[in-house]
Amino acid sequence: MQFSSKLIEKAVDEFSKLPGVGKKTALRLVLHLLKQDTSQTIELSEALTDLRKNIKYCKKCFNISDDDICNICASHRRDQSLICLVEDTRDVLAIENTSQYNGLYHVLGGIISPIEGIGPDDLNISELLDRVTGESAEVKEVIFGLSPTMEGDTTTFYISKKLKPLGIKTSTIARGIPIGGELEYADEITLGRSIVTRTAYEIGE
Amino acid sequence: MQFSSKLIEKAVDEFSKLPGVGKKTALRLVLHLLKQDTSQTIELSEALTDLRKNIKYCKKCFNISDDDICNICASHRRDQSLICLVEDTRDVLAIENTSQYNGLYHVLGGIISPIEGIGPDDLNISELLDRVTGESAEVKEVIFGLSPTMEGDTTTFYISKKLKPLGIKTSTIARGIPIGGELEYADEITLGRSIVTRTAYEIGE
Repeated sequence: MQFSSKLIEKAVDEFSKLPGVGKKTALRLVLHLLKQDTSQTIELSEALTDLRKNIKYCKKCFNISDDDICNICASHRRDQSLICLVEDTRDVLAIENTSQYNGLYHVLGGIISPIEGIGPDDLNISELLDRVTGESAEVKEVIFGLSPTMEGDTTTFYISKKLKPLGIKTSTIARGIPIGGELEYADEITLGRSIVTRTAYEIGE
Repeated sequence: MQFSSKLIEKAVDEFSKLPGVGKKTALRLVLHLLKQDTSQTIELSEALTDLRKNIKYCKKCFNISDDDICNICASHRRDQSLICLVEDTRDVLAIENTSQYNGLYHVLGGIISPIEGIGPDDLNISELLDRVTGESAEVKEVIFGLSPTMEGDTTTFYISKKLKPLGIKTSTIARGIPIGGELEYADEITLGRSIVTRTAYEIGE
């Protein structure tokens, strides 16, 4: 695409480096910003610069945080004996939004993927082991909250083998038919698993 | 969505003000930027601020430009007797990318749309009339390059009525079956029009 303005060209180039943003979308965003008040562009720019310069990662769980220790780790109302292991910050947000979990997290920063060249040493695994073995550690259970893909299962297997000798209870989030999902469209592996790992049906409380 | 970080929240808020970007997409973009080098975020921010602060609109055709007069208006190789009237800068880019047009442009900045409260006075119409009537004017033809919608047709009609007494030739870009399009899927109005406005078929040059 040929632009009549170097400024537009540069802005489109930068926008289109973002995932899922092509040149045409980038141009649409740029032209939209030009139609809006200057303050909107300034605020977007400042928010991004601020974020990138000042963001921290929690020293305990590696979740994104404004402080050295994130507000989940710092909270006294969270169950300190429970750690949910997740791939990245997005998963923390997703689980937090369910309001069904009251323990802590540990963000791995990825999953073991030989194809992408990510090995166990690239992830925050030793930090997890430190957390469960530390002197003041009160962790009783690690919940694996990784995606049920080959890479996720490999990572779960690898880490659970490391945790076993430490006497830590391990569990994975349930795999089964999504609520609202139709049985006939479920894949065979999920359906089979959901029968094997069926849960007791209780009426009321 | 609950964020563990005010910085993330602010950046997501700002991103999601852009058209077609919801909270989830905004979060994906923000987390992507956090994984990249700091310089990428800085460059994006700077490109946007630069753009918004320094962009100009060509004083002749109202196209986006780095200077007072855009490089199309300033070029001596463009046919000064031809003006193509378009809705916005995107249309200029689209036509320029065809490499089939060698005249000038005039960017209206919108089309007449009573529903959205856009009247003739909100558009660069008087400036167009000035351009074709000015003392040094050499404009012979105005090509209407507006979208074939009700609003576009209304605008074309309104402006062509203004141009008629000035003795300016007017034309619209051809409406017809898109190249590569299948006849049976074309709507009746387009197909009907394409028969009425058929063009002579010539072999070779």
